[in-house]
Amino acid sequence: MHLIIDLCVVPLGVGVSVSEHVTACQREIQASGLKHQMHAYGTNIEGPWDDVMAVVKRCHEVVHSMGAPRITTTLKLGTRTDREQSMDDKVDSVRQRMQQT
Amino acid sequence: MHLIIDLCVVPLGVGVSVSEHVTACQREIQASGLKHQMHAYGTNIEGPWDDVMAVVKRCHEVVHSMGAPRITTTLKLGTRTDREQSMDDKVDSVRQRMQQT
Amino acid sequence: MHLIIDLCVVPLGVGVSVSEHVTACQREIQASGLKHQMHAYGTNIEGPWDDVMAVVKRCHEVVHSMGAPRITTTLKLGTRTDREQSMDDKVDSVRQRMQQT
Amino acid sequence: MHLIIDLCVVPLGVGVSVSEHVTACQREIQASGLKHQMHAYGTNIEGPWDDVMAVVKRCHEVVHSMGAPRITTTLKLGTRTDREQSMDDKVDSVRQRMQQT
Repeated sequence: MHLIIDLCVVPLGVGVSVSEHVTACQREIQASGLKHQMHAYGTNIEGPWDDVMAVVKRCHEVVHSMGAPRITTTLKLGTRTDREQSMDDKVDSVRQRMQQT
Repeated sequence: MHLIIDLCVVPLGVGVSVSEHVTACQREIQASGLKHQMHAYGTNIEGPWDDVMAVVKRCHEVVHSMGAPRITTTLKLGTRTDREQSMDDKVDSVRQRMQQT
Repeated sequence: MHLIIDLCVVPLGVGVSVSEHVTACQREIQASGLKHQMHAYGTNIEGPWDDVMAVVKRCHEVVHSMGAPRITTTLKLGTRTDREQSMDDKVDSVRQRMQQT
Repeated sequence: MHLIIDLCVVPLGVGVSVSEHVTACQREIQASGLKHQMHAYGTNIEGPWDDVMAVVKRCHEVVHSMGAPRITTTLKLGTRTDREQSMDDKVDSVRQRMQQT
């Protein structure tokens, strides 16, 4: 099952700045070799279900290991069986329609 | 890692009513033996990370197998290492505070 | 437009326990007179769009006023034009199907 | 209150492709004049609370007016009072940390 997610990991109990922990997550995501794209409120990742979800788990593990006692994550997960569709396809599909009258 | 999630599975391409698919998910959740509680916009589930996430995957599998070509799921995931806290603890904690002046 | 939401307000920079802030939100929700139901990972609220969204804003205002420098909220919003459906209707619909073989 | 959101509007009952409806939302967002950035699983928008939330409402209105009988939206909302931070600042902060070490 091919999966596209939008991942937003929020550590609690570490103060107001969370960029150090978010960066550690980005490194886990990058190390996974999965296609990904960061945006201002999360990171999109795509690949086989188990691989993508393993990265989500590693993000929780690494953020806890950095000292965060609590994490709340928001995740969107998309799967489809009718056809293959990448993250780029999704954005292109809307961009093309935007250019039509 | 103990995990509490809030799961909301949304099948696309099956018409406006999704209760048949949501019911199938509830049956998967119930069959897992994990503690869970349905509400009007999702279902809370708690247990070991891998067990809980396996149920999420089975929900996608069963909803696709019922004919839904596309699924978008919203998930909240909470973990903490400072202390054990169940779903009931979370609700009780706020309810007790509500009763104080 | 009738709206059903699932609201989860997360204050950052206030330490690991957030129940004091969540309780303040619950009081705002209760004061609104809107129908609502707390669960272990948020609160469902229903009513006219503007009234419900005004409560969400007041939650951010009150949590900041308590000293939280940063808030991240996850919200699910449901509207439908085909028929009226309350929070109770949604849960009942699935519960009834669960009882059928 | 300055607000950064991540908006993902999902029409139900319109078939498996939702890009026509997502495009209509993008046009509403663009027409608002608010700073925004589309990604593969939503769109980030920033600006004053009431302006941003008005766009979310117009998205629901326009998608219903196109014939979608039901909509479920997932929204992340971020506010902070300790300092100003734009969508670009958030991404830059993590990108800079990624390049260190």
